[in-house]
Formats: sequence, structure tokens, C-alpha cells
Amino acid sequence: MEDTLQIRVGCRFSGSAIERSPTVFQLQPCTGDAHEILEESWRTEPDVARHEYCDSYGNRCQRLTVPPGEFMLRYDALVRTPATLDPADPAAVELAPADLPDDVLIYTSPSRYCFSDEMAATAEELFGTTPPGYGRVEEINTFVHNHLEYKMGTSTSLTTALAAYERGAGVCRDFAHLAVTFCRALDIPARYTFGYLPDIDKKSLYPMDFHAWFEAYLGDRWWTFDPRNNDRRRGRIVVGRGCDAVDVALATTYGNATLNELSVWSDLA
Amino acid sequence: MEDTLQIRVGCRFSGSAIERSPTVFQLQPCTGDAHEILEESWRTEPDVARHEYCDSYGNRCQRLTVPPGEFMLRYDALVRTPATLDPADPAAVELAPADLPDDVLIYTSPSRYCFSDEMAATAEELFGTTPPGYGRVEEINTFVHNHLEYKMGTSTSLTTALAAYERGAGVCRDFAHLAVTFCRALDIPARYTFGYLPDIDKKSLYPMDFHAWFEAYLGDRWWTFDPRNNDRRRGRIVVGRGCDAVDVALATTYGNATLNELSVWSDLA
Amino acid sequence: MEDTLQIRVGCRFSGSAIERSPTVFQLQPCTGDAHEILEESWRTEPDVARHEYCDSYGNRCQRLTVPPGEFMLRYDALVRTPATLDPADPAAVELAPADLPDDVLIYTSPSRYCFSDEMAATAEELFGTTPPGYGRVEEINTFVHNHLEYKMGTSTSLTTALAAYERGAGVCRDFAHLAVTFCRALDIPARYTFGYLPDIDKKSLYPMDFHAWFEAYLGDRWWTFDPRNNDRRRGRIVVGRGCDAVDVALATTYGNATLNELSVWSDLA
Amino acid sequence: MEDTLQIRVGCRFSGSAIERSPTVFQLQPCTGDAHEILEESWRTEPDVARHEYCDSYGNRCQRLTVPPGEFMLRYDALVRTPATLDPADPAAVELAPADLPDDVLIYTSPSRYCFSDEMAATAEELFGTTPPGYGRVEEINTFVHNHLEYKMGTSTSLTTALAAYERGAGVCRDFAHLAVTFCRALDIPARYTFGYLPDIDKKSLYPMDFHAWFEAYLGDRWWTFDPRNNDRRRGRIVVGRGCDAVDVALATTYGNATLNELSVWSDLA
Repeated sequence: MEDTLQIRVGCRFSGSAIERSPTVFQLQPCTGDAHEILEESWRTEPDVARHEYCDSYGNRCQRLTVPPGEFMLRYDALVRTPATLDPADPAAVELAPADLPDDVLIYTSPSRYCFSDEMAATAEELFGTTPPGYGRVEEINTFVHNHLEYKMGTSTSLTTALAAYERGAGVCRDFAHLAVTFCRALDIPARYTFGYLPDIDKKSLYPMDFHAWFEAYLGDRWWTFDPRNNDRRRGRIVVGRGCDAVDVALATTYGNATLNELSVWSDLA
Repeated sequence: MEDTLQIRVGCRFSGSAIERSPTVFQLQPCTGDAHEILEESWRTEPDVARHEYCDSYGNRCQRLTVPPGEFMLRYDALVRTPATLDPADPAAVELAPADLPDDVLIYTSPSRYCFSDEMAATAEELFGTTPPGYGRVEEINTFVHNHLEYKMGTSTSLTTALAAYERGAGVCRDFAHLAVTFCRALDIPARYTFGYLPDIDKKSLYPMDFHAWFEAYLGDRWWTFDPRNNDRRRGRIVVGRGCDAVDVALATTYGNATLNELSVWSDLA
Repeated sequence: MEDTLQIRVGCRFSGSAIERSPTVFQLQPCTGDAHEILEESWRTEPDVARHEYCDSYGNRCQRLTVPPGEFMLRYDALVRTPATLDPADPAAVELAPADLPDDVLIYTSPSRYCFSDEMAATAEELFGTTPPGYGRVEEINTFVHNHLEYKMGTSTSLTTALAAYERGAGVCRDFAHLAVTFCRALDIPARYTFGYLPDIDKKSLYPMDFHAWFEAYLGDRWWTFDPRNNDRRRGRIVVGRGCDAVDVALATTYGNATLNELSVWSDLA
Repeated sequence: MEDTLQIRVGCRFSGSAIERSPTVFQLQPCTGDAHEILEESWRTEPDVARHEYCDSYGNRCQRLTVPPGEFMLRYDALVRTPATLDPADPAAVELAPADLPDDVLIYTSPSRYCFSDEMAATAEELFGTTPPGYGRVEEINTFVHNHLEYKMGTSTSLTTALAAYERGAGVCRDFAHLAVTFCRALDIPARYTFGYLPDIDKKSLYPMDFHAWFEAYLGDRWWTFDPRNNDRRRGRIVVGRGCDAVDVALATTYGNATLNELSVWSDLA
């Protein structure tokens, strides 16, 4: 098992609810990637029942109902993952739409935060003459990295890629949304990706543990791109994937719960 | 087989493409509903290869590539379906979010055309004091029916439910999107539904064959609502369902094809 | 659309039931293969309700209840399929079990008619020294072709591959079961395949329309082998696939129905 | 969280392999049941890569390759589960085959170890006149409990339910197979179930931790029956379900590995 990293990931929520607040959490390293979960533990105070299911994107979801009053949830996992950088292949080609696999087509469509239809002209203007292929997605990635200023508080849960583009600022989620939008506008399948990003090589531009990036389908597989960091990284642990942040959220709450504190970890073990 | 109807449904596209234009068609009565397909036929001119797959919503999709030049596609089916009106149950209850089945949760989220997050305050204002349950969805249905003027040409493929609401006009797709949006804003799962609607009882407000409506999850099942007609109907044949019109479209084209003519039929056989 | 064949396939059952007899039919060309269905029709006398579903192998199944008395079911389809012979590649390799895709593993296990565990020593003795790869599956195919005498009436719905092997006779279903059993005993994934086989080149050893054969997973895909004919053919139309004939049957009946007549067609159109 | 039990389950394998031996393990409490996993850990010596997938029955499977030489695998989990006895309902009815859900039909078919076709006459003779319903499955359960003597070493991985029946002896797996076979012969859907059974109330007839039992579909759900113990129990933790032991096995090995020691635990925490 040389060439692997052991990474401890997890998070701790605490807050309070004024009524029973059903919540779906997406916190666990996903199934099917190269990483393995060696240890995993959940704790809530007070103890509440939790129920796991798999959504239509294959993401692992945990449902529970936050009871009225103070609440704490802690999730922790020890994960082993290859020590290599995010794979890359400058020779990977854009497929003609007719050649895309059936189950990839969904990632060419517009979605809640990614109006690839509305931004088609912008994408065409910016990247229409760039030679197709891996390099074009890299160019999109770099463009988004440079165009958006990273600034907490500039975006809300309603902010679309278009809005972030116009404002010129956002958080990692907006960076991912905007790059996804440009890709789809050019018929390149792209999906929003969410997970843990340890800062193994001390290169992060901003302290982060939970992070959002995206994947583009080129050649015969998905490739990782990170418009916030614009850099290949080691130890990325995917939690979930989907069309955009609607499909992959740390926590989706129905009810009236307040988050007081969130701490996240993602460190070499 | 008393109490069934035989309905002939289908459509004929003709148009031309200036380049190879990969297209996904959703034209066939869906699998799993109460209807049965007795006969079915496809024809294209020129002959092109066609490939069937099932998307993540369970919809049947047909992929083919429209070649450059003139093109015609004809689909025809003879379907048998129960002769009854759309089922209804005024006693059907809204479930608490904690009680919704896992696979229904996706239909409480916002989507490309249905900003249930952004319209939450409007929904609350309009329907927040209405007693929950089947009657509240009926009220939403009637509100949308009355609020929107049916007017071809008032909406495009970019028109959201919010935009239609503000303009006060739209086509059946906008009617469906708006009602779906209100439902989701109130945590009532709602899905966009597309299919054939024969005018058996001569009650349609406007000639239609392809039609869009929606379904809401109440009690332990999905119920049909049609904000355009605001009426229960016989002989409705579902083609597909999804979060909104992104997921269920007659034809999704990658390329440059022009539709010259579309005729649709949906008649008692 | 050069290099395609149009083939009319279908069948007509008639019989009678002394009680309501629920039945599952598997008659339709499958989804996902290279063929396309151009026309399709169903008829029953008397008319009965029919319900389609997809089983866990992805096979299309039609459920209906044969009513007491005389009954007739007729299914007919016009199918277009590539005009080429069954693909073959002598260079295709056997994968080490560690390299098999997850969803292929199920086809290395024993099943109702294929006791690959019990026949392991026989398989080892017969084929253990044959060089692994496509050629070994061909050798199994030829062995079964020569070892079994094709003889209607030598096997029943209880006949296992082992029993057919010992008796030295069987029908196409037994040929397929035996070859599947040998493959699995050698850790080569193999699945039972059922469908229509038109005799386009007048090479069939016996009149047949419905036919059973098998597929083996070598390299990165499934390859067709036909131990009954021991020959590559054109126009094969798959209806279904599974571990063995339990999973793919023309008709599975619960109740007491008698089949009086079955005619099957599979002809160039 | 009153009325729950915390149970520590797990096992430790050690052995040696003379060649690389790919193995699929099924050890984890399943997803979708009422239990929750609070902690979970894996360890192997030497360290090897492990890969999780979900099979077509929804079971969680872990693939790894045992390297040549000594090997150890240890899995441990802390699980919370309702403190109640296996649910039971003497009023639950047998459904007519026409009324069974589509996805339940597969559990009426014969399988590798369960020749419900071949044992149809025996089942009819023994239980044909018993009134249908939950009580009939109880009667089958009690019959198997009494007919088979529990005796380690009386059965092998080739032993079918029929063979166990004729010999009058077997282990828990044979008890389950025989009861499943009788149920299916009477068109009652039945599935083989495997998991951990803590002996909370000190009622086990034999020390056991891993255990096999079965479930029958009556009314609108699956019910637990345990022919080995012939008793309702608390704290049962399901690992997997399938047609028979082919589909749910502690370990399925391709290669040449020897198990030297297996210890299993399933205790109140």
C-alpha cells in the first residue's frame, strides 16, 4: 500500500431548532471512487434515528430529524486514497454529442444554478474559437479562476452562475457552477462535485476543508477540474456529484433549524 | 375489457438540418402506467439508426442523428387505457417532509424552471394559510389557471415559472412549471408531466395533443393536476416525468436543425 | 441504412386455462442492443389487461392473466438490425477475476440449471489445459455442439446442464446451459441468452425461430456463442439474458393453463 | 432513543493464500433496514486495496485480492437497532400471483439450492391443505425446524434443499433453503437472508453469530422467519438477501486461499 494517503475527514455541526426539522446530510466519502473508508463514526446529541439511502445520482444520503432544542452531529472517517495528483490528460478529446454515453447526456442540460442555455452566447464568445478538447476545459477553468474574486458573503443559496459571473465574485460553489455552465453551453458534459480537500501540499488559496469543484467528460471518462484553486491536487475525497449544488448539499433542511457552529476537518492521518 | 379507451397517438416532424444534428426524442407512452401499447411504429426519411435508452427518471428516450438535408420522423401508437377520469381524492393529505419516501425528496427541490426557493415568500403569501392537503394543491391549480393567460408566443425555452408568473401569461408548460414551483415552495413534492391529451369530451380550452401538466405527491401516491385545463380528464397518456421541462422534452437537439412542421394526434380509435 | 436487415419476428400462442393463470411473457426484442423496433403489435383474444415491467437483468417482461377458457396471444414486430455476422475476436482475452467489472461477477456463480461448482472437475479435465481466451470458449462451444445430440423430448423444465451432459442429449436450452456451466467453472463469466434466430443463410441445423445461446465476457465485452449451431450467424435478435433459463422464459405461468399451439416466426421482411 | 439496542458486530478472518485470490466479502449491515451503523472499521494485514459495490439485489459487497502468504481481515461495527422482536402478523395474507409486485416475482422462481420446481409435489403433499397465509409459512417454518437435525458437517457448499430434506440434517443455511423452497413451491415469494444474530435473550439453540434465515412476502411486506430457531428474536442485523446462498455469502473466493480461523461477534454493547 505504498503511494496511498490516510486522511481523516469529518465535521461537527451544532445548532438549535425551534421545531422538528427533517434534514438530509451528505457527508460520507462516496462509493465507487478509488478511496476506501477504513473507519467511520456518527454521533448525535441528543440521539436521533438516522436512515441512509442512495439518491438517483448514486450519492449516499443520511436522513434524520433534528429535534427541537440544542443539537449536535459529528461525523468522522478515516480514508485511504491514492497519493497521486488529480489525473489529467491534455490529449483527452471532446466527444461529438452523438458519441456521448446515454447516462452522460443529463450533464449537458441546464440546471437550477447553471443556465447554460442563457449563457450560450457568452460561452461561444469566450471559448468558441478555442480548439476543442481538454485544453478548452482548462481554459474555462483558468478563466473562471481569474474572473471571479473569491469572497465569502458575496453569494447566497439563490446565486446562479450567471449572477456570479456578472458580479465577478463568489465562493467555491459559484466557481464550480460557472465553469460547469460554460462547459455545458459548449456541449461538454460537466457535473458539480463536492467533497473534502485536504491541503496536503500547503497550496490552498484559502483555508478550506469542504470544497466544491467540477468534472468534465472528455475522451472516455470524467476529469477533475478545480476553478477555485486552478491546480491539480492530492487527496481529494468526493462526497457527491450532481447537476449542481441542488443535488449535493452538506445539509438540506425542511424546517427551522439554526446552525451555530460548523467545524470541518480534512487532514493527513 | 370494458371501461377502456383505445387511443391513437403520435406525431410527425419534418424539417431540415444543415449539419448532423444528434437528437433525443421522448414520444412514446411511458412504461409502468395503466395504459398498454397495442401497436407502435416508427418511420424516418431518410432511414437513420435509432437507439433507445432509459434516463434516470425512468423515461424512454430515443436517440438518433438527423442527417443534413430534409428529414421526416413519424411515430404512431395505438394505446389502450382505462376510461376513467384522472383519479382524485380530496382526503389525500400532505405528508410531513420526514414522512416522504426517499425517492420523492428530489421533487421538493428547485430546478431550472422552477425556483421554489426564490418564490417561497410568494407561495407562503398566497397559500400559506390554506389548509394543507389535496385541497391546497387544487387551490394552487386553480390559481395558476386563472392567473396565467394562455398565449402562444409569450414564452421561450428560457422562460421560468417566475417569469411567467410576473408576465401573467404562458403556454401549458409554464402553467405546469408555476404550479410545480408553488407546491415545492410549500414542501409538497411535485413533478412535471408531459404526454398526450385527447379531447374525448370536447372540453379542451385550446386544441392540444401534446400537453404538459403536473403531479403532486399526497398521501401515498402521485395525483394528476392540470392547471391549464383545471379539469379532470379521460385518456391522458403520460410520455415522461421529471423535475421540469429540461427532463422531459419532445426533442432535444444538439446541432442545427430546423423544424418546418409538427403534427400531433391523440384521438379515440 | 445499407448493411441492415429487416426481420419480422413474433409468435402466436393459443391454449386454454381452467382457472385464472397469471403469466409473464418475454417476447420483445430487448432494449440496448443494436437492433431497432420499427413496428410492434400485441393482440389477445379475449382482450385482457397487460402490464410491462423491467426485471433486475434489464429484460422486458409483460404480465397478464390468462382468463379461464380459450385464449390466444399474438405478438409481432418488425425489427431492423445490422446485417453483419455475430462479432468475433480470437484475440479477446480471459480476464483475471480481479479485473472483471463488478456487474459481471454474478455471471461466474452457479445457478439453477448450471452447477458450475459441481462440474468444476469435469471442466478442468476437459478444458483446464486449453490456452485461456476466446479460443477456449470456442473449444467449449464446439465440445458441447459435438457432445450433445439435439433431440426434442430428451429434456424437461427440470433438466440441468449436468443431466444433459450425462445423457448426451438435449435441446438448444441445454446446449446453452452446458456451455455456460463449463465457462463459469473456469471463472469465465457466461450468461444465457434467448431470442429470435432467423435462418437467413439457410444454415440452421434444425428449424428454429425462438432459440437459446450464450454470451461470454472476454476482453471488455460480451461475445456471442451458439453451441447448437456452432456457427456465427446474421440477424440474431436478443429477447433477454440472465443466469439461465429461469431468468429468461418465453412464458412463466402461475396456474393451470394448457398451451395448444405455438407458432413462431423470424423471417427477412 | 429508548427501545433501541446497541450491538457490536464483526468478524476476523485469518488464513493464507498460495496465489493472489480475489475475494468478495459481504459483512456489513445492509442499507435500508431499521438499524443504523454508528461506527465501522476495517483492517487487513497486510494492507490491501478494497473496493465497494452494490450488487443487483442491493447488497453491499467488498472486493479485495488476498495476496499470497498469511492474511488477516477484521471488520467491526457498532450498530443501533430497534429493541423489538421480529415483527409478526398472523393476519397477513398470501397474495394471488397476479397481485404480487413486479420486483417480488423473482423470489417465486427456483434457484441453485432451492428446487421449488422439483419439490412441488412434496410441498403440495405437506402443506397443500393448510389454510393459506402467515400461518402456513409458520407451519413450513416449524416443519423444517423439526424435520432437519442441526448438525455441522452434514452439508457442503453443494448441498441443495432437496438433499438436506432427504438427509434430514443440515446447518442454518440448509434450514433456510428448505423453507424457501417449500414457500416458492406454493407460489409464496421467499428470500434467503443472512446476517448477525446476537443471542440477547439466551435462547439460541446453538452458539451462532453469523446466521441464515429467510423472509416471506405476505400482505404488503416481507416477514422474518427463522427455521433454525423457530422463534422470534431481537437484534437481528441483516447483511444481505438474495435467492439463496449463492447471492449472499460471507466470502466468495476466486483462487486458492485457506481459511485458518474465523471468529465472529454479535454482542450487546
